[in-house]
Amino acid sequence: MKVAVVGATGYTGAELIRLLSMHPEVTGLFLFSRGEEVEVEKHFLGLGFAGKVKPLEELSGFNPDFAFLALPHGESGRYAQELIRRGVRVIDLSADFRLPLEVYDKWYGPHPAPELLEIAVYGLTEYFSEKIKTARLIANPGCYPTAFLLAVLPLAEKDLLQGVIISDMKSGVTGAGRAAKRETLFGEVAENFRPYGVGGKHRHLPEMENFLNMFAKGLRVIFTPHLVPMKRGILGTIYLNLTTDVSLEELRKIYLAKYQDKPFIKILPDGQLPETRAVYGTNNALIAVNKEPGGMVIVTVAIDNLGKGAAGQAVQNMNLMAGLDETCGLKNTGIYF
Amino acid sequence: MKVAVVGATGYTGAELIRLLSMHPEVTGLFLFSRGEEVEVEKHFLGLGFAGKVKPLEELSGFNPDFAFLALPHGESGRYAQELIRRGVRVIDLSADFRLPLEVYDKWYGPHPAPELLEIAVYGLTEYFSEKIKTARLIANPGCYPTAFLLAVLPLAEKDLLQGVIISDMKSGVTGAGRAAKRETLFGEVAENFRPYGVGGKHRHLPEMENFLNMFAKGLRVIFTPHLVPMKRGILGTIYLNLTTDVSLEELRKIYLAKYQDKPFIKILPDGQLPETRAVYGTNNALIAVNKEPGGMVIVTVAIDNLGKGAAGQAVQNMNLMAGLDETCGLKNTGIYF
Amino acid sequence: MKVAVVGATGYTGAELIRLLSMHPEVTGLFLFSRGEEVEVEKHFLGLGFAGKVKPLEELSGFNPDFAFLALPHGESGRYAQELIRRGVRVIDLSADFRLPLEVYDKWYGPHPAPELLEIAVYGLTEYFSEKIKTARLIANPGCYPTAFLLAVLPLAEKDLLQGVIISDMKSGVTGAGRAAKRETLFGEVAENFRPYGVGGKHRHLPEMENFLNMFAKGLRVIFTPHLVPMKRGILGTIYLNLTTDVSLEELRKIYLAKYQDKPFIKILPDGQLPETRAVYGTNNALIAVNKEPGGMVIVTVAIDNLGKGAAGQAVQNMNLMAGLDETCGLKNTGIYF
Amino acid sequence: MKVAVVGATGYTGAELIRLLSMHPEVTGLFLFSRGEEVEVEKHFLGLGFAGKVKPLEELSGFNPDFAFLALPHGESGRYAQELIRRGVRVIDLSADFRLPLEVYDKWYGPHPAPELLEIAVYGLTEYFSEKIKTARLIANPGCYPTAFLLAVLPLAEKDLLQGVIISDMKSGVTGAGRAAKRETLFGEVAENFRPYGVGGKHRHLPEMENFLNMFAKGLRVIFTPHLVPMKRGILGTIYLNLTTDVSLEELRKIYLAKYQDKPFIKILPDGQLPETRAVYGTNNALIAVNKEPGGMVIVTVAIDNLGKGAAGQAVQNMNLMAGLDETCGLKNTGIYF
Repeated sequence: MKVAVVGATGYTGAELIRLLSMHPEVTGLFLFSRGEEVEVEKHFLGLGFAGKVKPLEELSGFNPDFAFLALPHGESGRYAQELIRRGVRVIDLSADFRLPLEVYDKWYGPHPAPELLEIAVYGLTEYFSEKIKTARLIANPGCYPTAFLLAVLPLAEKDLLQGVIISDMKSGVTGAGRAAKRETLFGEVAENFRPYGVGGKHRHLPEMENFLNMFAKGLRVIFTPHLVPMKRGILGTIYLNLTTDVSLEELRKIYLAKYQDKPFIKILPDGQLPETRAVYGTNNALIAVNKEPGGMVIVTVAIDNLGKGAAGQAVQNMNLMAGLDETCGLKNTGIYF
Repeated sequence: MKVAVVGATGYTGAELIRLLSMHPEVTGLFLFSRGEEVEVEKHFLGLGFAGKVKPLEELSGFNPDFAFLALPHGESGRYAQELIRRGVRVIDLSADFRLPLEVYDKWYGPHPAPELLEIAVYGLTEYFSEKIKTARLIANPGCYPTAFLLAVLPLAEKDLLQGVIISDMKSGVTGAGRAAKRETLFGEVAENFRPYGVGGKHRHLPEMENFLNMFAKGLRVIFTPHLVPMKRGILGTIYLNLTTDVSLEELRKIYLAKYQDKPFIKILPDGQLPETRAVYGTNNALIAVNKEPGGMVIVTVAIDNLGKGAAGQAVQNMNLMAGLDETCGLKNTGIYF
Repeated sequence: MKVAVVGATGYTGAELIRLLSMHPEVTGLFLFSRGEEVEVEKHFLGLGFAGKVKPLEELSGFNPDFAFLALPHGESGRYAQELIRRGVRVIDLSADFRLPLEVYDKWYGPHPAPELLEIAVYGLTEYFSEKIKTARLIANPGCYPTAFLLAVLPLAEKDLLQGVIISDMKSGVTGAGRAAKRETLFGEVAENFRPYGVGGKHRHLPEMENFLNMFAKGLRVIFTPHLVPMKRGILGTIYLNLTTDVSLEELRKIYLAKYQDKPFIKILPDGQLPETRAVYGTNNALIAVNKEPGGMVIVTVAIDNLGKGAAGQAVQNMNLMAGLDETCGLKNTGIYF
Repeated sequence: MKVAVVGATGYTGAELIRLLSMHPEVTGLFLFSRGEEVEVEKHFLGLGFAGKVKPLEELSGFNPDFAFLALPHGESGRYAQELIRRGVRVIDLSADFRLPLEVYDKWYGPHPAPELLEIAVYGLTEYFSEKIKTARLIANPGCYPTAFLLAVLPLAEKDLLQGVIISDMKSGVTGAGRAAKRETLFGEVAENFRPYGVGGKHRHLPEMENFLNMFAKGLRVIFTPHLVPMKRGILGTIYLNLTTDVSLEELRKIYLAKYQDKPFIKILPDGQLPETRAVYGTNNALIAVNKEPGGMVIVTVAIDNLGKGAAGQAVQNMNLMAGLDETCGLKNTGIYF
């Protein structure tokens, strides 16, 4: 398969290159980057990519089997238009095709390609795999919504949840992108921990609520993101109210049954909790279910924001679209230490 | 004043030494350490402490004005007994005198000095300052409870809270102490974020609930601690349900009024959020109040776990006990970068 | 192939498991650990290893094709004896078989298995590959010596070096092992940089000098190790005096020629310098050659101390011993961000 | 004393504010910042600085006793001109007045105020204190040269050194400034160690050589800087050749004698080595002297790049200029953990 990574020099782009360069079915890997001078990372020296990253303009004459778009929202949608028109199957890692039009417009501004929204399939692989297989355009989920939905949907789809869901989430810094900003300098981030977007201001909130509401009605989400002084990883601590009393054992059984044939989702045994290093560099999600004496359920979940939260899930989706096993090229063990 | 630090080589002990060595009213600073070989930290070279840390046994012949106990629980209580008997005023930084006897026994085991519980004063300075001034024995609060209570009590004492309070808290690693344990090695902590004690297992939970219940009845606390890959700092994200609708402006006014003459507590203006580096090395607490569209209140709070969460508050308490201004020796600006 | 990892719970053991679990020719992977309680790392949940780590005693009844020993020196040698006797080919990652007997005794104490020294082959793959192919016992090199020798031998073996070689080296913390020690706690290592072993005290110095002297005579090494607040990576800055004036272009040509068919050694082009993240999680070594106006040569080199500096090179050696391509299972791209 | 900090929002500016706000003789502290929107750091909330940082243009109508210039080179020199003309005593933390004109021009471009070079005094306090006391303009030393010169001058001024001095130095990231650049993002710096400027390319090299040559002739310096994944601290490992054999004891005596009445310079006893955390947040320098069996001397030195390497030394110089004890306001104990 010939595959293009469009937006090759950001953090998500680099992770896509890392995964695709090790993918057994990818025979041609083509890299494109925006106007900025294309640099060749020392990291890829061994891959022979030197000098092979091309300016974005050259994408127009190129027809890969799959194109991954790792561009800012707005810009991504425009390239998707052109590629879809030429018959290229697109996996878009921006926010452009994740939300209904009116929600998108409110949070992101005018949509760059509204006519594509109806063919876009939300790429939360474990929940939309049938549609993904035949999709021409994948809206790859945001990192926070991926963690949130994987942790909450098993109970939501059984109508076991009610009221307000509190989603207290913590992310490493690569989630903020590779653009040079003062607030993500090492000198500002190291030895510091901080919340941001408190009070419903983060753009991943409507994505969480939109897809949660496909599976259950009447639920509200309070989402507080925090910045952790580390590069990778998302840990979510999610507080849930049940509609009816269900024992912890029953709750675990629901999760185990739901994900029993999902190779990347691991339900932890009693007494174990997820941690971000346990999924570092992988497409795995670790989930633990616990219950407070008063009955509230606490689900904790860990993913790699660049793995299952972005590039990993994107490759998993490509696998399905290409008729491959979804684990193809993704079974690598992460770096624990 | 002559002051002793008992347990001088742990993280809390070192911070006490740092603060007391700069304190203008401390004329003699005497250091004691447990059986382990006493090491002289390079850090204190400039202070002339070389060779001056004494084995704990020599404490028996020494009568300072104040003794700070930075020892493990259980052991701390025994030394407190002896010192109190000799008329030394004691500030105990362990958990030994923070809880009612039956609660202590349940969480920590048999109490080492139950007869002292009735004279112990809980050292949350902003709430118990009058009792602290004349106390012979201070139970210096735990780091998590300090952050929690400072953030929650202004609303609790006005009976504005109901139901379950969710206290999602994140701490730097020095909170786990300086004993050599695999789980706090750099190789395990760096590039990792993890929850622990999920489900009401952390021993700071009864301390939170005990003192919360002095100010309001019928409240329950769900407390989830997390370990952040940084050395110092606690950030709490606390979710509260109001008994009656109060506007955000009114809520802020309550906090501002409560803490208006409390020099170490800063209520942040609208749009600002606390972060741990802003209190690094200080005795300050930063608090922000926000409200979700649905009415839930989110209070975020940052302290330095070794500052206001331990050594800083202990020195603040000593100041009151000695009749000094509570800010004496504590007005240093922290390290932001 | 059936492969055993003996000492599975340390940092080197975990990296061996990571690499071997992805190795296409390893059909059985068996884990053994010392007396301590065997824990199952969350990291390996996806591999199905749960409950499969066995106590070291059970090794005696087991005959794999290859055994990797990731044990402390002294202990390692004793297990090597038993395994070699039973015909198992051994790759020992301790220091037990790296040095001549009299040097070993001086730096490490009495040797546990001196009779095996004559059959041990030093596993610096790029220099001893022929012997490695048929070896029964590999002395896998130390992390610092690997970086040093790869950087220095191309000039040494051409007799281009004279006098004192200054090897100023910096390592991440996993190089110090996973035993719980105060000095490697997060609270001691983060936001700190320090030298250690100044003045010829580090046990990797005799290993450097011993093998350097196989290729050139009369050279002395000054080796200063430093601890970097990061988990993985070694960066060496090595200062060399030439015997005769050689242009920078000629020097680079020597390195390029030496390593042209060595897939893991990359000589960087003019203007680029190695950095540890560029080899994170890989078996690669990056080398840059520079020259000072006065004629001194500065060679900088980066490896992953757990990769080419330990587990990666060990697997590379196993590949040769098994008649496989040396890159088998090792072509993964590292984690750059 | 009224004091101005010009360039208040960078890392050096923030450290100046931190130190000056705690300085007992500073009665008025006035902050100015370049065109960029002036932000009020949460860190300074307790100091009452909110809204008090003024645009740089307002500096023209203001006559403090001392002005600290923490601006980029070139710009700094222009403001120095104006301030000196108005009789303000200036401590310039840029490179503008550290070098002879022809050297400056070569490394930095056209000089902004060459006529001031003759009145500028190099602010390496321990070596130029007499001139500093009466100076109108201080050229505060660079961070690397401060560490280097403190470590080397005691032997250089006794003509004990010859040949090439190798200065292998490692710095935290705040040394690279607070401007938003990709290369200092957390995602690029964390878990990475790298050299830069290899081969005599760093602009601190001529500063080292220029002042070294004031004390000894015929010495050359090879300077290799490295970036450490930490915020603060410089550690230098310096390799020296003696002209004549001097015992280690004699060497230590030379250092002890040289710095015996210098309160910020500590010579470590045998067996101890400097580390950056031991000077974190202080104006101290720690120096250890060691000798290799072959006779080469290794001097290791640690300073805080924002302390003795910038703001701390600047305040020390102000103290001398104001007739105060040089330790005034600088005796704070640093943060060790």
